[in-house]
Amino acid sequence: MADPTSSLDAVLAHVDDQIDASVERLFALLRIASISTEPAYAGECRKAADWLARELDELGFDADVRATEGHPMVVGHQKGKDAPSVLFYGHYDVQPVDPLSLWENEPFDPKIREENGRNAIFARGASDDKGQLMTFIEACRAYKAVRGSLPVNVTVLFEGEEEAGSASLGPFLDATADELKADIALVCDTDMWDTETPSIITMLRGLVGEEVEITAANRDLHSGMYGGAARNPIQVLSDIVASLRNPDGSVAVAGFYDDVTELPAHVAEQWQRLPFDGAAYLSDVGLSMPAGERGRSVLEQITSRPTCEINGITGGYTGDGFKTVIPSKASAKISFRLVGNQDPEKIREAFRAHVRARVPSDCSVTFASHGASPATTIPADGAFLTKALAALTDEWNREAAIAGSGGSIPIVGDFKRKLGMDSLLIGFAQTDDRIHSPNEKYNLESYHRGIRSWVRILDKFAEI
Amino acid sequence: MADPTSSLDAVLAHVDDQIDASVERLFALLRIASISTEPAYAGECRKAADWLARELDELGFDADVRATEGHPMVVGHQKGKDAPSVLFYGHYDVQPVDPLSLWENEPFDPKIREENGRNAIFARGASDDKGQLMTFIEACRAYKAVRGSLPVNVTVLFEGEEEAGSASLGPFLDATADELKADIALVCDTDMWDTETPSIITMLRGLVGEEVEITAANRDLHSGMYGGAARNPIQVLSDIVASLRNPDGSVAVAGFYDDVTELPAHVAEQWQRLPFDGAAYLSDVGLSMPAGERGRSVLEQITSRPTCEINGITGGYTGDGFKTVIPSKASAKISFRLVGNQDPEKIREAFRAHVRARVPSDCSVTFASHGASPATTIPADGAFLTKALAALTDEWNREAAIAGSGGSIPIVGDFKRKLGMDSLLIGFAQTDDRIHSPNEKYNLESYHRGIRSWVRILDKFAEI
Repeated sequence: MADPTSSLDAVLAHVDDQIDASVERLFALLRIASISTEPAYAGECRKAADWLARELDELGFDADVRATEGHPMVVGHQKGKDAPSVLFYGHYDVQPVDPLSLWENEPFDPKIREENGRNAIFARGASDDKGQLMTFIEACRAYKAVRGSLPVNVTVLFEGEEEAGSASLGPFLDATADELKADIALVCDTDMWDTETPSIITMLRGLVGEEVEITAANRDLHSGMYGGAARNPIQVLSDIVASLRNPDGSVAVAGFYDDVTELPAHVAEQWQRLPFDGAAYLSDVGLSMPAGERGRSVLEQITSRPTCEINGITGGYTGDGFKTVIPSKASAKISFRLVGNQDPEKIREAFRAHVRARVPSDCSVTFASHGASPATTIPADGAFLTKALAALTDEWNREAAIAGSGGSIPIVGDFKRKLGMDSLLIGFAQTDDRIHSPNEKYNLESYHRGIRSWVRILDKFAEI
Repeated sequence: MADPTSSLDAVLAHVDDQIDASVERLFALLRIASISTEPAYAGECRKAADWLARELDELGFDADVRATEGHPMVVGHQKGKDAPSVLFYGHYDVQPVDPLSLWENEPFDPKIREENGRNAIFARGASDDKGQLMTFIEACRAYKAVRGSLPVNVTVLFEGEEEAGSASLGPFLDATADELKADIALVCDTDMWDTETPSIITMLRGLVGEEVEITAANRDLHSGMYGGAARNPIQVLSDIVASLRNPDGSVAVAGFYDDVTELPAHVAEQWQRLPFDGAAYLSDVGLSMPAGERGRSVLEQITSRPTCEINGITGGYTGDGFKTVIPSKASAKISFRLVGNQDPEKIREAFRAHVRARVPSDCSVTFASHGASPATTIPADGAFLTKALAALTDEWNREAAIAGSGGSIPIVGDFKRKLGMDSLLIGFAQTDDRIHSPNEKYNLESYHRGIRSWVRILDKFAEI
């Protein structure tokens, strides 16, 4: 029988004993193709939500699946202790898998392989975010098995639209604020600093996503009959895309840098100490020249500086062979990563004005908005942060880095604004996990020691 | 019984009597989805070739289907007369049909509808080139029915790879030069000047097709993790595409205009007389500003001046929703229309040098060639041209224009180089036929009077 006084070591030993079964459960979740951006996979998203609710139920949570306008939420509670309360957040949806031909195994048929001397689980979502969220579930499972309950009050929230813009999340948080509010939020969707060094993120870039479509002629034209005289929307779009960056790598949209802040001196100083090899970071992906703002380090370019990226472009004939068409339309998906006090809507409007000023008078342009979130800075102090740092240091025998992240995790801003909570961003992914790309993986060590890390963190939180 | 002395009027009357059956036969050919650029439709191409060979056989031709490395050729002969010999050329392959959603009827289920007060046949290939080649077959059918034979010696050649680069045509012409050679080639793949005015084309632009692919990182990257520091190949490609045109609309590739010749003065003078409304030509497709070289008329921009067009571009995520990816690769299909003495291979190399000079050192570029043909100028005199002009004038009661065409018809250069023959380019398509686009059509009048025009042309040729 579970013994509520069992030592922390007993819980950790249970994690170690049961790691194979923990991997099997993660595999079961990875086999569900819960791609949130593609409507055809809505049923798979529902299946992943149901699967998670069942797991939570088994572990003593009061758990259910909550419908939204989009993919459902999973909420579970295990409360009633005279102890601090935490809200754990993860997302069960995953990115599309194209191009499928580059995968070494089927993306939804997980396999363990060795890569660079470490065993890893290869599958879409292995790292982002199914592997990460399962570290927390499996930590709860160890407590349940050894002690019968958790050391603190826990609410979990699993979202199914994180990769698709989180349209339902704001309304859902508004409706459930009283139910979800806790002393601290725990978000597990980030990287370790490196394979040896755990990390808590206190700074996140924001994001504005835009889709821009240029229409020229009212139909596709034959370039033999119209080529020369007819406006080519691919040419117009390319001219616009080319105009977005200055030769020095900076973004050319007027006012873009107005609300950008510089790193605090003490953070800049800590970053000098942290192990980070910008050249190696780029050479790992086959590149050698930082492409961002001249005079900024690679670490600054990817975390503390804003950027503009073209995430997709399409127009005309793109199949096999050749078609001498002048298309009617061309479109691009463009995103801006934001820092400091950059206002997403102000950046969006500045971008749209930049584009409109470059569209010839007989072409038209339409815009579609794909989400907006400001950058977030989390206060780097407080009891929960201190305890979490101590727990991570115990597990990894290395002082945890207090870091920034180049990616956006809009939930952190939502938790602050809607629920009044700070968040601790603690994750065990590695920078080479290839999230959003073919052959995504999650190191077995990330999974195993991630579970152990949460066991230790919850134990330390009980001391607060 | 057929009477070899029957008057021209009797043959024309037969055309008129049988027009409904002629339309039915064209419909049968249009129902075959002979898309040559898509390997999945190879069987349909074969089916179209077989169908044509059977039709020719019925009309007394010694006809057969000849295998090539690609789609087959159809060759038919009806010879033995003490009369001039002609080689008639057409192509039975058609362009892809995407985007299918914009078609008002299924592209391979032809329908007759009224548009702008004229009845027309709507289907992929109705105009380019099945409707056009069938005008000649049906003219032959009328002669066969009324007189039992043709007034001149006729060879027909139908190709199945015109829309796919005509890879097999050169070797085939080399191998069959003696068999195919005639006094004159007749090519039916061009437009009338307008709905009232027939036209014989004496000037054709050439074409160079290129596909360029830029590779940056060795895999797709997450823009949160790499955005800012990692080179974005869509940005690189857009910068390159933007660099291809000068602000005055001219092509910015070094040396591009070196071998361009100006129109002969008497042709330029004739073009001033011909009815052509550049503003209406553009407004018909929803445009208002000529996009080509400043200071050149729309007619010059589309026929006598060279151009560069982006026919397709793709990179990154282009599905529904949004994906914050920095792709590994981006690619574009780019073509140049050539005039005068521009050398396709010289233009290709100048383009590639232009691109290479703009690719950052840690990106790579690959090129694929999609065909090359120089511009062609056909001597605007000679007995066949004179007779054809007279025949067209008789049929249309309007002097035929001697015109240029903005599109490439490489066969004309091949006939000249390999078979030593000049070509007369006579077609009955209209500029609003939407060839290569959704809702392609061929006016019923084009079909009916096109058949009558060939009856008259062959009759006049017999006088030579």
